[in-house]
Amino acid sequence: MKILLINPNVTEAVTEVMAAEARHWASPGTEIVPVTARFGASYIETRGEAAIAAHAVLDALAEHAAGHDAAIVSAFGDPGLAAAREVMHIPVVGIAEAAMLTAYTLGKRYAIVTMSARLATWYRECARDHGLDGRLVAIRALTGAIADIANAKEELGHAVVAECLLAVEEDGAEVVIMGGGPLAGLARDARDDIPVPVLDGVSCAVMLAESLVRLGPRAPERGSFAKPASKPFEGLSPALSALLDPDQ
Amino acid sequence: MKILLINPNVTEAVTEVMAAEARHWASPGTEIVPVTARFGASYIETRGEAAIAAHAVLDALAEHAAGHDAAIVSAFGDPGLAAAREVMHIPVVGIAEAAMLTAYTLGKRYAIVTMSARLATWYRECARDHGLDGRLVAIRALTGAIADIANAKEELGHAVVAECLLAVEEDGAEVVIMGGGPLAGLARDARDDIPVPVLDGVSCAVMLAESLVRLGPRAPERGSFAKPASKPFEGLSPALSALLDPDQ
Amino acid sequence: MKILLINPNVTEAVTEVMAAEARHWASPGTEIVPVTARFGASYIETRGEAAIAAHAVLDALAEHAAGHDAAIVSAFGDPGLAAAREVMHIPVVGIAEAAMLTAYTLGKRYAIVTMSARLATWYRECARDHGLDGRLVAIRALTGAIADIANAKEELGHAVVAECLLAVEEDGAEVVIMGGGPLAGLARDARDDIPVPVLDGVSCAVMLAESLVRLGPRAPERGSFAKPASKPFEGLSPALSALLDPDQ
Amino acid sequence: MKILLINPNVTEAVTEVMAAEARHWASPGTEIVPVTARFGASYIETRGEAAIAAHAVLDALAEHAAGHDAAIVSAFGDPGLAAAREVMHIPVVGIAEAAMLTAYTLGKRYAIVTMSARLATWYRECARDHGLDGRLVAIRALTGAIADIANAKEELGHAVVAECLLAVEEDGAEVVIMGGGPLAGLARDARDDIPVPVLDGVSCAVMLAESLVRLGPRAPERGSFAKPASKPFEGLSPALSALLDPDQ
Amino acid sequence: MKILLINPNVTEAVTEVMAAEARHWASPGTEIVPVTARFGASYIETRGEAAIAAHAVLDALAEHAAGHDAAIVSAFGDPGLAAAREVMHIPVVGIAEAAMLTAYTLGKRYAIVTMSARLATWYRECARDHGLDGRLVAIRALTGAIADIANAKEELGHAVVAECLLAVEEDGAEVVIMGGGPLAGLARDARDDIPVPVLDGVSCAVMLAESLVRLGPRAPERGSFAKPASKPFEGLSPALSALLDPDQ
Amino acid sequence: MKILLINPNVTEAVTEVMAAEARHWASPGTEIVPVTARFGASYIETRGEAAIAAHAVLDALAEHAAGHDAAIVSAFGDPGLAAAREVMHIPVVGIAEAAMLTAYTLGKRYAIVTMSARLATWYRECARDHGLDGRLVAIRALTGAIADIANAKEELGHAVVAECLLAVEEDGAEVVIMGGGPLAGLARDARDDIPVPVLDGVSCAVMLAESLVRLGPRAPERGSFAKPASKPFEGLSPALSALLDPDQ
Repeated sequence: MKILLINPNVTEAVTEVMAAEARHWASPGTEIVPVTARFGASYIETRGEAAIAAHAVLDALAEHAAGHDAAIVSAFGDPGLAAAREVMHIPVVGIAEAAMLTAYTLGKRYAIVTMSARLATWYRECARDHGLDGRLVAIRALTGAIADIANAKEELGHAVVAECLLAVEEDGAEVVIMGGGPLAGLARDARDDIPVPVLDGVSCAVMLAESLVRLGPRAPERGSFAKPASKPFEGLSPALSALLDPDQ
Repeated sequence: MKILLINPNVTEAVTEVMAAEARHWASPGTEIVPVTARFGASYIETRGEAAIAAHAVLDALAEHAAGHDAAIVSAFGDPGLAAAREVMHIPVVGIAEAAMLTAYTLGKRYAIVTMSARLATWYRECARDHGLDGRLVAIRALTGAIADIANAKEELGHAVVAECLLAVEEDGAEVVIMGGGPLAGLARDARDDIPVPVLDGVSCAVMLAESLVRLGPRAPERGSFAKPASKPFEGLSPALSALLDPDQ
Repeated sequence: MKILLINPNVTEAVTEVMAAEARHWASPGTEIVPVTARFGASYIETRGEAAIAAHAVLDALAEHAAGHDAAIVSAFGDPGLAAAREVMHIPVVGIAEAAMLTAYTLGKRYAIVTMSARLATWYRECARDHGLDGRLVAIRALTGAIADIANAKEELGHAVVAECLLAVEEDGAEVVIMGGGPLAGLARDARDDIPVPVLDGVSCAVMLAESLVRLGPRAPERGSFAKPASKPFEGLSPALSALLDPDQ
Repeated sequence: MKILLINPNVTEAVTEVMAAEARHWASPGTEIVPVTARFGASYIETRGEAAIAAHAVLDALAEHAAGHDAAIVSAFGDPGLAAAREVMHIPVVGIAEAAMLTAYTLGKRYAIVTMSARLATWYRECARDHGLDGRLVAIRALTGAIADIANAKEELGHAVVAECLLAVEEDGAEVVIMGGGPLAGLARDARDDIPVPVLDGVSCAVMLAESLVRLGPRAPERGSFAKPASKPFEGLSPALSALLDPDQ
Repeated sequence: MKILLINPNVTEAVTEVMAAEARHWASPGTEIVPVTARFGASYIETRGEAAIAAHAVLDALAEHAAGHDAAIVSAFGDPGLAAAREVMHIPVVGIAEAAMLTAYTLGKRYAIVTMSARLATWYRECARDHGLDGRLVAIRALTGAIADIANAKEELGHAVVAECLLAVEEDGAEVVIMGGGPLAGLARDARDDIPVPVLDGVSCAVMLAESLVRLGPRAPERGSFAKPASKPFEGLSPALSALLDPDQ
Repeated sequence: MKILLINPNVTEAVTEVMAAEARHWASPGTEIVPVTARFGASYIETRGEAAIAAHAVLDALAEHAAGHDAAIVSAFGDPGLAAAREVMHIPVVGIAEAAMLTAYTLGKRYAIVTMSARLATWYRECARDHGLDGRLVAIRALTGAIADIANAKEELGHAVVAECLLAVEEDGAEVVIMGGGPLAGLARDARDDIPVPVLDGVSCAVMLAESLVRLGPRAPERGSFAKPASKPFEGLSPALSALLDPDQ
């Protein structure tokens, strides 16, 4: 099985962190193929950055998805996820969605801990957009700016774990998600430091992607995820034009 | 990996149907161990039958779970699922929950099709209890009583598929779940007859159980799923007494 | 009028506390007949204990309900209440439900105060299950384990009242419910210590049961509370088998 | 026990219909004292008419409530109910509220059937205002204007019953409320014609008022139902001025 | 354009404060015509006072609306607003509604700051009634009674601004509304003291009223805002009788 | 006042239709400056097309917004609206948002009528995203593909009006919005053919933009709409890079 892991921001070092974690969790026969967005932010925090990233995810899928069995949108916040599902015939999963769905199986109340207030806003809107905010009891964010996204896990790890403990004590969280692609692996390291299950997005997304490939659901021919009819586009990359407007 | 598949009703023939389907989907190294409830209804449709089944699920786990890596509560409606999670240190998944969570990854609007109006009521309450009814657009039920639960798939299969088509056409469902353990396998057979992805619970539950075993989340020491303190019980089976009241 | 008061836990001393309180409130012509669950926990706090209690409530109704005009499920959390309504032709009321409905007539915002965190979880799920959580502004719980459930009212009463005051001051509760069958009578004693109406479940349930008997609604022949068709069961008590499977 | 029954419209004949039904259900020792609004509409259907009726209910309470143990606001829609609770030290109940709360104990899904589309709008807003619309599955209304409100029960009764049957068959209602004070008594007459419990407001309100008097909850000193401080008013009736502005 | 500004309380000084602020914001060609309620409270805080005010708003419209292009109900809480829309053929807007709708365009999370706890309750119910409470994150109220409503802005202004800052810091409000007609103008004065947009009702209502006049939507002939059929009334002012019962 | 009207699709003819309608409604002193997206779809229907359009809206604002007092995102569905508000210091309004907010002032129940099922999905998600779906009772869509978007109003106008009538009759809509930028002006033409108020987005957006400019709310320095800190971007247009990363 071959899974395309798309980093929707433009920082290669973050791509590598996430790909390494994905490989840790993948089944023996699963190959993880990482790719970094062609345009966009060095790391995504705001609605504007997420909007550009959604375009970049489609752009990357158009360029790279051929030959893969599934794709992972590897920014917590899942930019472009639903859009990607409309146009791809392989399963596409988001790391936020995957972590949230997994949290639903491990407790009734889950919390997300993340690195900045802007990320907290994005993640809350993401959970709501997925219809998975009903059991979200808190999003906790570190204060202060993120100095170096590529080393965020090392620099901010202790502070993130401390907030996870507060999520349990003060918010009554029964599962905690560490939100943010660059934190990939921290949940594993901190497993024994937090008294409830702790998840990150990459691990859950690998499981979910493999499961969906094995289930092999048919592509929809009806509804809002059926492949749209071809129509004219302008100004897109050749690959994205070809994907969206094959009749051109 | 060894997964205990619990049929919460007392009909062995249904246990076998579900176990066979579970084996179809399980990974090569996964063993499915079926067990049938010691007491309860021949098939579960009502709140009363589900209440008794919840007790029977705990009873079966107490008797049989030792040596397993995970357990599946294999009645759509997930009787006793949250209770089981409180007292077991291995992952426990429900077939309704598993199908609903999977549906969330394949479309925005899902429907459930089932065999009777009483089942429809139970499934709706189950979806609501899981906080997964926000994207549930319809539950469609056949009319008439279920003559022979062990052969329900053969006898009612065509009618169920017909309702699935109506769920797509009239309710705008983008994913359809065939609800009811005894229908296990029908979704696979009817894959090409329905223009959107169609799921059943057993297949999704096998994927979910395997994923959770691989993720290996720690047991909670806090919150409403932490193992309860021992307290006196009366009138339970010896195994269940030992599980719930180890200090006795 | 004869009302069966079912204690869903197995502790006779708690049954007596609740029966005494019920008799305090009953009309002159009303007889309260207490009965204690045949199996289950010494007191009910968790989902697992509540699941077993639901079965025990059905078991007790099957054994004892004949000749009564109504029944009260006398554990706050209402285990088995909806199931009981499916199979009984007399009104069945729960003490949590009764207190919540009464609270709706006395203020816009109500709180529940109870003895432990596990109870708080159960009560919250109970309120949600009844569709009566929209005006529930807080559930406050004492910390620490319950040492002696039969004397809980005496030992924990002061602490419960203190939390009630906090519910008014900090949560803005306009009505407070003291949740927990063993607290029966405390609301009456503390009436003047709390500056808003304070309720317990037993008193409200007696009023509700009497009212429903007087209203005399007909039994439903349609919908999810119509008496289910007979079907085979295994492993139940003779009385419960006879109730659920009269054709056997 | 003495209960003031306030008809918020100005039609004496309707007052009499409702008072007769209230007396049918009242306990032997309960006296029903009817009073008709001093100003307002001949019957209330619209938001404007309900707004005026809310004032009229306060006006009537100020004039007549002395010496009563409880009061009933006897227009389905409960005009002025919450306002009345702020200023009265006796229990005040609404006939819509009472019927809805009772419906919550008899089924999971309830419907309201009424005489006109304008009433349906009002009742829907009333249910939502009470936080009791979560289990309301339909409001069905007759078409056409109401020719003679005082004889509505006789003239429209058959049509109302027919809609009740549709509420059961098409909407899946498990309880049906006949909404509209002038229909008082019809639910009793039609009890055997509808296959689920059928309620009206007056009967339920009598039960609820008697129950609250017996429970005797203390008056709130905190929150939004505590008696407001005195402040100047202009242009009100002497009795209402005296009630709202006792320092004057 | 001529806009009738109705003060639903009976205090002329408050009418003048609000009219002055309305004139500040009105377009050059817009004339603001203030009118004070004929009966009711010196200022409105409770449900009872609001109920009477709703009647008074209809009364004032009936007396004064002729010749105006739009009307503003100028008490935050919008008493009688929906009722007024049923019977008037010109646009009627409420100052709470106008501020809330404007807040929806300036941030995702809004808060209301007001002068007393009773007002907070009323405003919360108003937001809910409008279906605009989904993005309302807090209502903050000053403690203590309002000594002099006509000078509330001067006396309480600093305290209100302090609460606005807390709404931003502690509640995460992205827009703050100063709730209460007598505060008209304070938002303008405090614009630079609060780090997010701050609104009051009168300014937003003037904009909304002018916009609706320019859009010129037709009067509804269907639905719950179509002009009701004439029916008999008793005890109303001649103007209101003539408005509601033109056939009389 | 100068308002930038951004057409998020790439079809100039649609830009002209919308600009003409905007000019019809603008105040005498208001200048409408239309601009067409530099890249994207010929018309926007799907999530993928909307995702690309969100980027294109930011791109257009960066290029053209200087010197304007406000901007209108002129595709019903409001692509990129919240993102635009983060980075712009002038008011930005969406035509869907503007129409929905206006609908809230004219009736309790609104419907949207549009040209295709894919648009209906987008609009529903848009309403939900704005928190304005609570009063949305139906979205009705024409069947069949859109042959010529530039002439959609002429070709599909009669069919759209017919659906509006059904929205009133069958869905009980009290206000109808014609959704879709290319339909601009149709609501005006059909004003007398539909028995309730009918709106389109462009007219409402012009009113809203002018109102916000006149209100002149300050830019937020706190919360999720405060201007983000500068950070590195790659692959964007020079103008957009300069807007998002001014320190570069």
